[in-house]
Amino acid sequence: MAATLLAIFKRPEGGEDAMEEFLTRYLDEHMPLIEKVPGLRSSVVERVAHHYSGDDIVIVTRMEFDDRDALDAGMSSDEMRVAGRNLRDIAPGLLTLVALEEEPVS
Amino acid sequence: MAATLLAIFKRPEGGEDAMEEFLTRYLDEHMPLIEKVPGLRSSVVERVAHHYSGDDIVIVTRMEFDDRDALDAGMSSDEMRVAGRNLRDIAPGLLTLVALEEEPVS
Repeated sequence: MAATLLAIFKRPEGGEDAMEEFLTRYLDEHMPLIEKVPGLRSSVVERVAHHYSGDDIVIVTRMEFDDRDALDAGMSSDEMRVAGRNLRDIAPGLLTLVALEEEPVS
Repeated sequence: MAATLLAIFKRPEGGEDAMEEFLTRYLDEHMPLIEKVPGLRSSVVERVAHHYSGDDIVIVTRMEFDDRDALDAGMSSDEMRVAGRNLRDIAPGLLTLVALEEEPVS
């Protein structure tokens, strides 16, 4: 069963300029590093177009792997370590990162 | 372009029992109400299988509509109002709800 890594980012402090800088560095610096992670099958970056309730999140990125073992191996890879270091530079404290599994239909 | 409604839930307080009750009511009460929302094309409930960093979230649900107009109409519907009331009963204060649009590849 495919395994999904989901990254959720809160809005950076510093207004529009900080948001634009974060988005530019995320797309131009960080995602190319993520795309080098072994076992990654696909990635999709989505922006929040409208906020209805709860936390002020701005970006949601889905990263798909063949299965949970492939996801675990990707998370342990040198490439992911490099990507993680980059992220701590461009988005300190903004990230929620989880692995998801689809809820079986009962 | 398809439009996505994303619901993210934090862990309820009250330990394992509260989590099980929330999950049962979410799947058995809430999702059947969501499935009545006009214009909804599909919905997928995913559980957090592993937490790496950030907020303690436990459920992520994607709801797909044909386009942003269909999503807006669904959000304004009586069916969504009923579903929203139900959610405030079973998951007060736990929900972050946003509309997403895919980031164009530059």
